[in-house]
Amino acid sequence: MFKHDKKLLHDVKVDGPNPNYAALLQEQLGGPQGELKAALQYLSQSLRIKDPEIKDLFLDVAAEEMSHFEMVAETVNLLNGHVLDAANATVGSVEAHVLTGLTPMLANASGYLWTAAYVNETGDLAADILSDIAAEQRAKVVYEYLYRQISDKGVRETIDFLLNREEAHNAMFREAFNRIQDTGSQKDYGATVDSRIYFDLSHPGGQSFDPGHAHAPSFNPPS
Amino acid sequence: MFKHDKKLLHDVKVDGPNPNYAALLQEQLGGPQGELKAALQYLSQSLRIKDPEIKDLFLDVAAEEMSHFEMVAETVNLLNGHVLDAANATVGSVEAHVLTGLTPMLANASGYLWTAAYVNETGDLAADILSDIAAEQRAKVVYEYLYRQISDKGVRETIDFLLNREEAHNAMFREAFNRIQDTGSQKDYGATVDSRIYFDLSHPGGQSFDPGHAHAPSFNPPS
Amino acid sequence: MFKHDKKLLHDVKVDGPNPNYAALLQEQLGGPQGELKAALQYLSQSLRIKDPEIKDLFLDVAAEEMSHFEMVAETVNLLNGHVLDAANATVGSVEAHVLTGLTPMLANASGYLWTAAYVNETGDLAADILSDIAAEQRAKVVYEYLYRQISDKGVRETIDFLLNREEAHNAMFREAFNRIQDTGSQKDYGATVDSRIYFDLSHPGGQSFDPGHAHAPSFNPPS
Amino acid sequence: MFKHDKKLLHDVKVDGPNPNYAALLQEQLGGPQGELKAALQYLSQSLRIKDPEIKDLFLDVAAEEMSHFEMVAETVNLLNGHVLDAANATVGSVEAHVLTGLTPMLANASGYLWTAAYVNETGDLAADILSDIAAEQRAKVVYEYLYRQISDKGVRETIDFLLNREEAHNAMFREAFNRIQDTGSQKDYGATVDSRIYFDLSHPGGQSFDPGHAHAPSFNPPS
Amino acid sequence: MFKHDKKLLHDVKVDGPNPNYAALLQEQLGGPQGELKAALQYLSQSLRIKDPEIKDLFLDVAAEEMSHFEMVAETVNLLNGHVLDAANATVGSVEAHVLTGLTPMLANASGYLWTAAYVNETGDLAADILSDIAAEQRAKVVYEYLYRQISDKGVRETIDFLLNREEAHNAMFREAFNRIQDTGSQKDYGATVDSRIYFDLSHPGGQSFDPGHAHAPSFNPPS
Amino acid sequence: MFKHDKKLLHDVKVDGPNPNYAALLQEQLGGPQGELKAALQYLSQSLRIKDPEIKDLFLDVAAEEMSHFEMVAETVNLLNGHVLDAANATVGSVEAHVLTGLTPMLANASGYLWTAAYVNETGDLAADILSDIAAEQRAKVVYEYLYRQISDKGVRETIDFLLNREEAHNAMFREAFNRIQDTGSQKDYGATVDSRIYFDLSHPGGQSFDPGHAHAPSFNPPS
Repeated sequence: MFKHDKKLLHDVKVDGPNPNYAALLQEQLGGPQGELKAALQYLSQSLRIKDPEIKDLFLDVAAEEMSHFEMVAETVNLLNGHVLDAANATVGSVEAHVLTGLTPMLANASGYLWTAAYVNETGDLAADILSDIAAEQRAKVVYEYLYRQISDKGVRETIDFLLNREEAHNAMFREAFNRIQDTGSQKDYGATVDSRIYFDLSHPGGQSFDPGHAHAPSFNPPS
Repeated sequence: MFKHDKKLLHDVKVDGPNPNYAALLQEQLGGPQGELKAALQYLSQSLRIKDPEIKDLFLDVAAEEMSHFEMVAETVNLLNGHVLDAANATVGSVEAHVLTGLTPMLANASGYLWTAAYVNETGDLAADILSDIAAEQRAKVVYEYLYRQISDKGVRETIDFLLNREEAHNAMFREAFNRIQDTGSQKDYGATVDSRIYFDLSHPGGQSFDPGHAHAPSFNPPS
Repeated sequence: MFKHDKKLLHDVKVDGPNPNYAALLQEQLGGPQGELKAALQYLSQSLRIKDPEIKDLFLDVAAEEMSHFEMVAETVNLLNGHVLDAANATVGSVEAHVLTGLTPMLANASGYLWTAAYVNETGDLAADILSDIAAEQRAKVVYEYLYRQISDKGVRETIDFLLNREEAHNAMFREAFNRIQDTGSQKDYGATVDSRIYFDLSHPGGQSFDPGHAHAPSFNPPS
Repeated sequence: MFKHDKKLLHDVKVDGPNPNYAALLQEQLGGPQGELKAALQYLSQSLRIKDPEIKDLFLDVAAEEMSHFEMVAETVNLLNGHVLDAANATVGSVEAHVLTGLTPMLANASGYLWTAAYVNETGDLAADILSDIAAEQRAKVVYEYLYRQISDKGVRETIDFLLNREEAHNAMFREAFNRIQDTGSQKDYGATVDSRIYFDLSHPGGQSFDPGHAHAPSFNPPS
Repeated sequence: MFKHDKKLLHDVKVDGPNPNYAALLQEQLGGPQGELKAALQYLSQSLRIKDPEIKDLFLDVAAEEMSHFEMVAETVNLLNGHVLDAANATVGSVEAHVLTGLTPMLANASGYLWTAAYVNETGDLAADILSDIAAEQRAKVVYEYLYRQISDKGVRETIDFLLNREEAHNAMFREAFNRIQDTGSQKDYGATVDSRIYFDLSHPGGQSFDPGHAHAPSFNPPS
Repeated sequence: MFKHDKKLLHDVKVDGPNPNYAALLQEQLGGPQGELKAALQYLSQSLRIKDPEIKDLFLDVAAEEMSHFEMVAETVNLLNGHVLDAANATVGSVEAHVLTGLTPMLANASGYLWTAAYVNETGDLAADILSDIAAEQRAKVVYEYLYRQISDKGVRETIDFLLNREEAHNAMFREAFNRIQDTGSQKDYGATVDSRIYFDLSHPGGQSFDPGHAHAPSFNPPS
């Protein structure tokens, strides 16, 4: 069951309206590395997890990502301001000015609608956690790109918080991965000699990466 | 520049036509964990890589995935046989019988058309390699699912080969990750206290995962 | 902020596994009239609502729809059972058997991935509530179709509950509409004579519907 | 059978070319609340309607929406002018300048291609008419947004006409709804006590909307 | 302006209900080579054509394709029959039984929703007519595939009629192409030596096709 | 099997960075008439071709289009430069600045993600070649539009080369078509009187195109 608390997970504010930056920030609402994708990926994956602690982790993070979604949405809302002015919406999607009456939208910065094609779920916990570690890293990269391109202090604080949270999730998913790293698709299923070949198909450029080790990936324990 | 050799990377054969299994195997042609996605993800990511060895790796693997695409396509082709018979195509997509004249198609097992929404690229090498490690793991899982559901020996041999190759790529991407793990989005960008909080938002279920360590992920060196 | 309670809003159970029906029920997870669409439509629309009571209503219902999503997902999960058996998945999408390892998925009964194109939001409260009344009615119709085609008692109980809840939401949205019916796009904006013409463009068949009344729609008060 | 008359339903003109506004107006050609969606929704729904008068209404309106589509397309055409100049196409989609040679396109203002995901049809007349009332209201809202952002007199006249026509359709659909309001999904199917509960899931904020009345919605008779 | 006549362009009938074949026939309603695509492609392209006779041709054919759409839809309708029975809908999309209440839908045989990505328009008449000749040929091929797989006499008559009409359109578009073949993109724009090279990139297999002639394509005059 | 050569098929260079034009040029990477579509269409179609010379042609051209893809991608890369600056990315998609870190992307100029809906394949060689002739012509038109809107000499040289290559492919496909023009869907299948009717459905405007000749299309031999 989901419950909602009208208090945001973390307050947001903006120095002032900035419709063009609102369009950019949409990327993290409705883009492939955004909060909606994260929330729905973890929620979907959680549905079949048996380990209660890991299931709890996925649901904690899914609920937090939904809460991030709210924070980003509210920031976009504030940046959109109160004036429909498509003529000056010269960067990215213009939908806020013609379709949604300045309401945030489930689309990326260029107006591409959110699609479940962004969500990866396999029913294999190891593969799913690796997907999530990668997803958090990508989300962090996008927030870094967005951070660099805004001077509004309120927005910067919010992005800084969210970026740190992706880092936290990343650490937690890594810890979870270490716990289950000898299970599921990480188990040795009997790799053959084919897993130790290197096909050198792009020329020039020899072989620099050793495919000989088909060992399961793992993350260093916290030092 | 791409060159094509009419010899397949690895021969394929099938015991006999099996249109329903052909539909299933489409998943790895045109699905989110399939060969086209892999090839185009690595090719796209390679476009801005500066490290020549890693760029070479990405292009070697991209060319190999294109070659896998061909192997899967040829297998689907053989499994489709030579008779349009939609009435007996009771599993998954029916497009081979009404649209493509039994030619393999850029769609998944249920007929959903391939979309670039499956492709992740960020311009950050660490994030991209993590995406690729996860992608290879997911591809392997799907091949395992497909392997379990077919007794055709020719198909099994092909899937076994491809599965081992995903494992090989996984090992190579892990090695690449270890080489660059202190760069780009892996660098300490100044994580704040926010990265060490755990929001316990799903109840009951306490905190079992320690978010205190916002250290960069890494893969154990080959032992 | 969203919080999650591991207890479902309403318990679900099934008489036994039924993978084909699991595929059908996916329609209400990831289809256009399903629970994800409802939750995200109300949540998105709520972002700019000013009236605190109506905003609260939208958030109450959004959280409930997310909770329905969980109920449907858990039911699909149980119906999927524990055996990958694509060969006998002869109805609808086959993705559970080749892609998601029997985990429910953000797609409809035929495997079409969920898209934000299903979500309507306009920033105009009257238009949004009318959209929601229609959405609830459509959701109810789909549940009726699904109810008729299953004899599993557990599934029927769950559908019956959900169907009644759509009815409840419908009643609440109607009440909300009555409260705001002279505002926003419901206001007389100065309709011209053009709003009273009937273009009789399909022949034969005269004019039976009087376009002369461009009055605002309203719902009868509860009698 | 459809027949075409080269005379527009209503003449259109523009004061002069305005490629940026052409991009905006694309929203009502190929967007979710646009004319193509309306035409195809009503046409699709009409296919299974039995009541001859209502079927006639749907086909009259579908043909009119196709005729509106032509009017909007011709207006976009005139606004696009005769010069490919992508560098100055700074608002919304740039496809007219690189892909379509200034021809209007089945996409929204930001270039998202039209998708049948916008079309709702359920086979239940009550649900379909409610969908249509909501669709007309949303279309009206978008036209109002577009009207406010253009001073070109020709464009304003065309939008004013179209806006009034949506209002007319809205009135006709309401009248149709009143005629069938005790049928199909509007009938009492035996609502249970579950339809009278209010789940207060967003806090703070109590219950202000009474879910106790699961009565069928209806529209006030013209007064 | 579009007008509708309730008489079909050509009567349709079926020997009896056949829900699985109804799903297959959906391909020509909402698939890439179907009637909706044809109608909207020709209508879109017509919007900027200046030659009045060719514009008239495009509009004649667009209106006819809309009329074909109706014929196919009515046939799907009859084949769907009157019983929701998803359990026996074992071929292709199952949406008619869970979503649309047996109403035809804007999707292909496997349930993929129609998308404007199917529509090609360039603003260049020569390119557009070549696209249309190819589109008609593909439509014919799909109808042939569908024809072979049904013994219902009513359906066969309808497909035979439609197939002949695609042939007629093909002939008309070829005639139109011959008229304009020295204009637009057919004109010699100053091809360089690069247009006469053959890159022999797939081995083994030499060069059998002479790229030396960059002459404009043309169609033989009727003999 | 695909092999990659790090040398481009033809060198590319740019006079200097030009992020807005980079966005425009994306059209030919990830748009409907772009290089990825061409490569994947010919590769897909080739899978079931039996004639060895025509199969070789398709694979030669597919490999060349993949090589063009690389050239366009490298050009976009150079035009994107090295500075994330979304605020000045006022034309088309802004994804390079927020999502991909200036890496080229599988999307068109306005950010619409590449979809396999662009790819036509029918299993009928005549229909496929006609599709390819049309595709090459459309690609040429888009390159002409792009050429006109850039003065950068390096870019112009690259576009000129690519445009000439589309012309070369066009010539080769026409020659292929002439070889197979009495086969497959080109054969007389017994056209009826229905193929010789003209439905004059758009008024005013009589019949100017003679549908009486259902002869197979053909291309004039090189003169």
